[in-house]
Parts: sequence; structure tokens; C-alpha cells
Amino acid sequence: MINNFHIYNTLTRKKEPFEALNPPKVGLYACGPTVYGDAHLGHARQAITFDILFRYLQHLGYKVRYVRNITDVGHLENDADEGEDKIQVKARLESLEPMEVVQHYMNRYHMNMDALNVLRPSIEPRASGHIIEQQELIVKIMDAGYAYEVNGSVYFDVNAYNETHPYGQLSGRKVEDLLSNTRALDGQSEKKSGLDFALWKKADPLHIMQWPSKWSDGYPGWHLECSAMSTKYLGEQFDIHGGGIDLLFPHHECEIAQNVAGYGKAAVRYWMHNNMITIGGQKMGRSFGNFITLDQLFEGDHALLEQAYGPMTIRFFILQAHYRSTLDFSNEALKASEKGLIRLLNAVATLDSIKTSDTSSVDVATLEERCSQAMEDDMNTAKLIGLLLGGVNIIHKLAEGKESIAEKELEKLKNIYFSWVYSVLGLEQPEESGKANEITGDLITMILNLRNDAKSSRDFETADRIRKELTNMGITVKDRKDGADWEIN
Amino acid sequence: MINNFHIYNTLTRKKEPFEALNPPKVGLYACGPTVYGDAHLGHARQAITFDILFRYLQHLGYKVRYVRNITDVGHLENDADEGEDKIQVKARLESLEPMEVVQHYMNRYHMNMDALNVLRPSIEPRASGHIIEQQELIVKIMDAGYAYEVNGSVYFDVNAYNETHPYGQLSGRKVEDLLSNTRALDGQSEKKSGLDFALWKKADPLHIMQWPSKWSDGYPGWHLECSAMSTKYLGEQFDIHGGGIDLLFPHHECEIAQNVAGYGKAAVRYWMHNNMITIGGQKMGRSFGNFITLDQLFEGDHALLEQAYGPMTIRFFILQAHYRSTLDFSNEALKASEKGLIRLLNAVATLDSIKTSDTSSVDVATLEERCSQAMEDDMNTAKLIGLLLGGVNIIHKLAEGKESIAEKELEKLKNIYFSWVYSVLGLEQPEESGKANEITGDLITMILNLRNDAKSSRDFETADRIRKELTNMGITVKDRKDGADWEIN
Repeated sequence: MINNFHIYNTLTRKKEPFEALNPPKVGLYACGPTVYGDAHLGHARQAITFDILFRYLQHLGYKVRYVRNITDVGHLENDADEGEDKIQVKARLESLEPMEVVQHYMNRYHMNMDALNVLRPSIEPRASGHIIEQQELIVKIMDAGYAYEVNGSVYFDVNAYNETHPYGQLSGRKVEDLLSNTRALDGQSEKKSGLDFALWKKADPLHIMQWPSKWSDGYPGWHLECSAMSTKYLGEQFDIHGGGIDLLFPHHECEIAQNVAGYGKAAVRYWMHNNMITIGGQKMGRSFGNFITLDQLFEGDHALLEQAYGPMTIRFFILQAHYRSTLDFSNEALKASEKGLIRLLNAVATLDSIKTSDTSSVDVATLEERCSQAMEDDMNTAKLIGLLLGGVNIIHKLAEGKESIAEKELEKLKNIYFSWVYSVLGLEQPEESGKANEITGDLITMILNLRNDAKSSRDFETADRIRKELTNMGITVKDRKDGADWEIN
Repeated sequence: MINNFHIYNTLTRKKEPFEALNPPKVGLYACGPTVYGDAHLGHARQAITFDILFRYLQHLGYKVRYVRNITDVGHLENDADEGEDKIQVKARLESLEPMEVVQHYMNRYHMNMDALNVLRPSIEPRASGHIIEQQELIVKIMDAGYAYEVNGSVYFDVNAYNETHPYGQLSGRKVEDLLSNTRALDGQSEKKSGLDFALWKKADPLHIMQWPSKWSDGYPGWHLECSAMSTKYLGEQFDIHGGGIDLLFPHHECEIAQNVAGYGKAAVRYWMHNNMITIGGQKMGRSFGNFITLDQLFEGDHALLEQAYGPMTIRFFILQAHYRSTLDFSNEALKASEKGLIRLLNAVATLDSIKTSDTSSVDVATLEERCSQAMEDDMNTAKLIGLLLGGVNIIHKLAEGKESIAEKELEKLKNIYFSWVYSVLGLEQPEESGKANEITGDLITMILNLRNDAKSSRDFETADRIRKELTNMGITVKDRKDGADWEIN
């Protein structure tokens, strides 16, 4: 697999050429949602980022096994080791069995992702479905001397680990600095150190989600599932691990420690992190209460929204920024994205009507090369979209006959747009009910013919009235030499 | 909760009044698919049958927790205790990790069910996600003396169980008769008796799906998951258990034995079984190789299909038979269903345009009562649909002004049709792209106005041409006193 794809590896803090461990196979793991509420713009960005990676690697010819988990147990309030399970809190509030909450929000997450044209991962394992695998990993970590049991709970011993392996490599933190920033233990804590994290928590009797173990009836710590499930489905070493930058520390840092402690080696070759969505400069998140859910965006149903934004507009908006940049929500930016998207998709739809010449006055090869280079450069979709939008003018000129293109070059041009826009960026033409739209087209043609008849019989009043009525319905009529053209706005 | 709902209980072989254990809550469990292939008409019938029950119980005012499992491990070829796991066979054939196979077919199953407007269950647990719960149940059954371990596998001891509890109650079989019909053990078998069934199977080293246990690294027997998961999510006793009649023996019989042996009591109050889809008189099934998948039906893509049949036609076809009758596939029957469905849905769509009078010449109360009675009688959707179709003539007459109806009665009539057709039977008007259809309507109106203008100026040639062109497009124009009406065929 020869390619020039470079990935910014969070672990090494530089762009590195991508080399698969077992080409043509690639193992990709990305953190999925904790399913206790509706997905918001931030979830969309993470899912779309690694959807693009999944699609792009396949575009490069790799056979990708993409694993994205569902966190349905173990994720406590405040992302720490104290407090209640996020799902259980929601279940109590709504008087439901926790798994009813999980099912409900998982279904809704899938619906949202389908709308955004995010491909389903190859495997979508659930934390609650892999308790045994997590327990097995705990045993390995304890056997290696990097975890201890207290009162039925098991904690990872960060200080013991740090003696032999540097803890904090991914986030560039040092244990000493971390310790000085950590609240001193209050004497009530079971942990030896404030940096230690739970691998297994003994459940109090009221905790609904609990499983038997050799330590206690309890449940796994949040960080554990990703180590256990990525190993189960991708092996002890695999190519790429993705997630939002907010998961970098402590979640991914702990994941590395668990893998090294349990399996004797780090699992991941390339760590990739997408940046956050901000709103008025602040990170958008459930915990901050400043989020806009995807359904709210699709329906325009939120005080901050001036209109509804379709799923493809959201997708395009997200892809117009490089995944490692922050992306600030605003109506202005979303409206600009909507316009850009329509401009791009309309141009792509025009490609099939371009007529070829013997020679070309346009340079397709350079566009082709630059598009590839943009994606090879750490998946720069922002740059790619810029290039594709730049080419729209050329497409317009070709359609209007102001530039010429040979058959082979046109094939190349189509291939550029179809493969990048549809296959890799995953953008779709607006969905249309096939039959209804076919009829719509036929009806408009019929009306334009009636208008032509009116013109021919010099009944300009009727002809103008028809044009006006169509305009009122949002249909623009453009008179051309060889008849009239129309467009639904 | 007062109601007159009667259920045919397979266990008692008679219709019994439905009484919930903990009203207004109802616990409902139905067997879901083994996800190693595409769903066919038989799967649709089972899912739709219990979807109707789920909807109908809610219609009666119950709060239903509906659990439908996904079998993703343990279901061996030939539904017996020998042979390979069905999913593993498929995975090997396609060089995939078993959970990739599971994910793929589970996604496709969900897509098919969504298309059929089958509601998602409240909880959809997976067998592989409940290994611990299944192991716990095995321990209980062994402790009670109804299971034995051989070479790392654990089998349910049917003869020991039968000494204290009658085995075969659900299917009406006797152990003696069953034994005389069972192939004699060949001396190689680990089982004490041919009737015994696996609770835990020791995995051979090549078996990918295996988990540690106190007996061996292995996997659970197929029947076990339903006992373990129904208990976990619905409790040791719950209201209704559903499934296809092909699951009655041995699957459900074994399930009862497991529950009685492990928890000391039978779990289920009402057992309901839907009958099979036949094709040329033979049961349609994956094992028989005579199945037509739902996608093939939706796309008309099978040698036996004369045309494509939409999901609503399939749903209507299935509901036109009582769930306990066999239902034979034929193009004639499906075409008749398609016509009946359109007739019914068109009539329902007409209800909003009916004008009220001071008095009623039609009898709505009787229809209302008879519809309720049909469903109360063991969920007789066939009868209900017959009654609703019978009422279509009345709706037509009301629309044409040949019968009259008072406002209150009209509300009642609408309520009958909207609640039974949409809410309980789950039938939907054909999906239409909202905007495109609105435009279509406006365009047709515009054309009909132009035709009127032509008529007014005595240009009958143009008027006729317009009508003809519309007809060619599949749009029928009906001239009425107060203007023209139209219909897309």
C-alpha cells in the first residue's frame, strides 16, 4: 500500500507518514457516545472526523475494521471515580430501567448519525456487554503489580506504574506536576494517590447495574472498556485510536497505562484527536449546559438558532474546518456553509451535462493532485473543500461553453468530484422523493410549454403570469436560446 | 385496568382474559433474530405480530416494557447442540470477525424493521452481552440438581427435572414419547439422555467466540439467553412471552425448564406463538432455502416475485391473517393486499374532507364496538381489517354526500380509523417528500387553471391536450361542478 498519507500523531506531536501494521488491513478504534442524552454538535464532530478517516482509508485501498464503542455503564458524573453512573441518574429521573435509557438514546444516536451520513462502524461493542473481558484485564494488571484492591474496589496504581513507565506521555504531563495540581486525599478516600483511577468499583446496594466479580458485586471503571474492547476486536496492537481532545486526559492516558500494565505494551500506533466545537468561545458540552442537540439544529428548535440547518449543512460546516482546529458555532458560519454546500452540490450535479471538445482549456491534473495532497496532509478537509469550491467556477464555465474540455479530462474531473464529494466527504445531494420529483419536473416542462404556446400566439400577458406564478412557488425560469431552463430554489 | 382483552395462551390451549401482574405495567418478551443473514418474510411476521401486541397494549393504557433479544452467539447449526455456531460459520465464509457479521446483519435487520414501521423494543439485549448472567443461572440450575458437567460442558438433565416437574407442558409432549422418537445416543455423546440440552459448551480451540467460566472456556447454550435476559429485565415472573411457533419446541420448552429449575418457578403467564409463513404449502425458513428476504420483496428482486411490494403492503398482507393462522405467500395475495391497503389508506385520507350535517344517517357506534371486539378476541387483526375495509364504502358515501354525519359522530369515525389504522396496526400513508409534493400539488392546480382558461376561451383542443398529457403522467382529472379534482395514480 503505497500512499503519502501523513497523520498528526498526538503521542509524538508531529506529522508522521502512515504505515499500517498489517496492510492492507487497518485497525481503527474511536470513542463513541455515553448514551444518556441526545447527541449535540460536539458528538457530530467527533463521529464525522473518524467517519472521514474510515472513508479515506478505504479510498486509499485499505480494508478497515472500525470499532466504535457505546458507553452504557461505568461513566460516572463529573467523569471522575465518585458520584453516580450517568445513565443510572437519568434512569432514576425518568423511572426507567437503565437499559431502557441506553436503548432509547442509542437508537436516537443512530438516527442522528444516519442523517449525517456517518457510516456505521464495523463493530459497535457495548461496555456492559464486555464485563468479563474487563475483569480479565483487571486480573492481568493486578498480576503485574499495577493495581490494588480496597474494600472490594480495584484501583490502578499510577505511582507504581510511573516508576517503570512514564505516565503522562500522551498528554505531555508529568506525575509530579499532576500531583501538585490534584486535590489532596481527604483521608476518606480508598485511593493511595489522587491520580489513581478505578478499574472496578464496588456497587452500593441501590446501584442497579452491577455484576459479580472476585472483588465485589460492582461495575467497571470508565477507562477500562476501551482497553478491553479494542484489544478484543483489534488485537494487542493496532493502527489508529481516535477521540475528542477532551478525552485525551485522563481517559486516553489511562487507557495507555492499562494496556501497558496489562498486556506489556502500548496498543496504539497513531493517536488522533479532533478539536472541540465552541460556542461564544467556550467548549460546547453536556456538562456546560450550552449545547445544541442535533435534532434542535435539524429543526431550528433552539433560542440560539435563527433557522433550521439540514444534516448535510452540519456535516459540511464541520468539514470546512480542519479537525484539529476549534470550530465556533454561529448562525453566520452555518448559513455560509449552507450556501457553500449548495454551490458545490449544484456544480457536481451539472457535471453530467457538460459537453466535451477535442481539446481542453482547463487544467484538471493540477486540481486532482492538489486535492490528494490536501487529504494526505493530515486529512485537511478544509483545504480540500476550498479546492473543490475553487473548481466550481471552472465547472460553470465548462457548462456555459466558455471553457472546453476533452472527454478523458472530463472523466477525470467527474472522478475528482464524485469520489471526494460523495465517497470521502460523504456529502449527499438533497434527498428527493423520486416519483414526486420526476412528476414535478414533467409538470414544470408542461407549464413551460404552455407558456411557449402563449408566447407564440403573442399572449404575453399569460406568459408573464405563468412566470410570475412559478416565481412565487420558488421556481426560477431562465430563458435561453434553445428554450427555457428552470431551477427550484 | 379494565379491559376485555383475551389471549390464546399456548400453555393452557385456551383463550384467557388478560390480567397484568402489576398493572398498569406489562412485561413483554419476544424472541428476536439470530443475526447471520438477512431477514425474510417469516421474521417480518414474528416482529409485526408482537409489534401489534406492543402497540395494542399501550392503546389499552398499559405501560409496556418490551424486551426483544438479539441472538449473536450460541445458536448452532441445525438448532441442536452439535455443529458450529451459525454466526461463526458465516464469519469464516466471509473472513470476518464474528461480531462484524453480527453488526452487519443487526443493522440490516433494524433497517428492515424500521421500513415495516415495527417499533423498536424498549430493550434489545444481546446474548454475548449477558454471559455472566447466563453463567449465574447455570450455577443455580446445577445447585438445584438439574444439570451436570461433563468434560467442561454443562447439560440440563431433562429426566431428573421431569421427575419433579412435567417437561413438555407447553408443547403437550411427554418425555416417554419424546424419548422413543429421539435417536439413541451413539456412545460418543456426553449427554445422559438425548433430550438433555447444553447450558454451556466447552469451545474447541478454533472457536472464536468463547469466554472463561468455572467449567471451561466456552459459550452458552442457545436456550439459556432468553431465560437469563428476560429475568434480568422483566423479573422472575412477567406477563407475556412471544415467539414463532417453530420456537415452541424445544426452545421455549427448554426455557420454561431452565426458569423452573433455576428460579423455582415458571416466569411466563401467557405464551403467545405466531404461525408460519408458507410458500407452496411448505414453511418458509433459512434452513429450507425457500425464503424471500425483505429486501428482495421491497425491490422485486427474486425469481418468484412478479413485482416489488412496499413495506406497508407486506405489513398489511401479514395483518390480514390472524397471527395464529398459517399465511401462504403468493403474488396474487400480495397484489390483493396492495389494492386493499391503498383503498383503506385513501379512505382514511378522505376523512378530513367530509362535511358534517345536523344528523347522521350512518351507524358509527356499532363499527366502533365491533372493531374493539375484534382486537379483544386474541388480537384478530384480520377481522379488524375486514371491518375497517367494510367502513370504506360508508366513508366514500359520506364524501360524496350520499350519507350524512353529525360532527360528534364524525369525530368518532376519525378516531376509529386514525387510532386503529395508524396507531395500532401501524400502517402509514405512502411517504412523500413534503416540499416536492406541495410543489406538485401547486403545479397541477396551476395547470388545471390554465386548462380552465382554455375552456373559457373555448380552446377545447388545448384543454383536452392538457388532460391527456396529465393522464399520460399518471394524473387523473375528474371534472366536478365546483372545479376539477385530481389524483396521482
